[in-house]
Amino acid sequence: MRKERVELTPIGRVESPLTEPASAPKQGDEGAPAAWLVITVDLLAGLDGIVAGDDILVFTWLHRARREALTVHPRGDASRPPQGVFNTRSPDRPNPIGLHRVQVVEVDDNRLQVRGLEAIDGTPILDLKPVLSTNVSER
Amino acid sequence: MRKERVELTPIGRVESPLTEPASAPKQGDEGAPAAWLVITVDLLAGLDGIVAGDDILVFTWLHRARREALTVHPRGDASRPPQGVFNTRSPDRPNPIGLHRVQVVEVDDNRLQVRGLEAIDGTPILDLKPVLSTNVSER
Repeated sequence: MRKERVELTPIGRVESPLTEPASAPKQGDEGAPAAWLVITVDLLAGLDGIVAGDDILVFTWLHRARREALTVHPRGDASRPPQGVFNTRSPDRPNPIGLHRVQVVEVDDNRLQVRGLEAIDGTPILDLKPVLSTNVSER
Repeated sequence: MRKERVELTPIGRVESPLTEPASAPKQGDEGAPAAWLVITVDLLAGLDGIVAGDDILVFTWLHRARREALTVHPRGDASRPPQGVFNTRSPDRPNPIGLHRVQVVEVDDNRLQVRGLEAIDGTPILDLKPVLSTNVSER
């Protein structure tokens, strides 16, 4: 298999009161505070149509992850048997892409305030997509 | 905002009878054929625990996408008003990461046969994650 590389430039960053991975909830519905998605101004047109109340998927780059990990204890619980990283939501994995479902609270130009995001302050954002209600491709 | 880059190495590739984007269904529940996820042998341990019947999320790199697109007609339908790409599931977007929910049909070493994948043959795979039933972070 050819080992080509894929290069991405983040489209923005997370602004959040969460600053340390240890203090972040494991999932966004476990008490994450309000946060902002700050999108690069050049990409503003890409946000057309996103409004307060929308449910969106946020793809992040979990820049502090251990990319060499192939097995982990689920949720960091050493009493649970190790699992392959692709069978867990651990941030530690070869390509640490985070996936978060959040609700848009406010849209202010290139800044989206969202509810339910567990990513820490400064986390690079790779992509945003709408949640689809008419099918289950991403669910 | 700092313009750092993020570098990924695909963890594998899609093997599918679909060979042209035009022939691929827009979403996996619209008639996609059975396909295989062929994972790099070095990463085999990362698949531990994935079994036939599991619902998983497949993250792909949509390598034929137009990365400069910021607005598109939803589903390529010119009669629909253009939308910001981040408000659509178009493959054309600055970081063309594809997200697909599929069901595992068979696990054969580093090869997973799956149902419901609309990606074309040769599409690079970036990550796999389980679908979570206990919360809605990714739904």
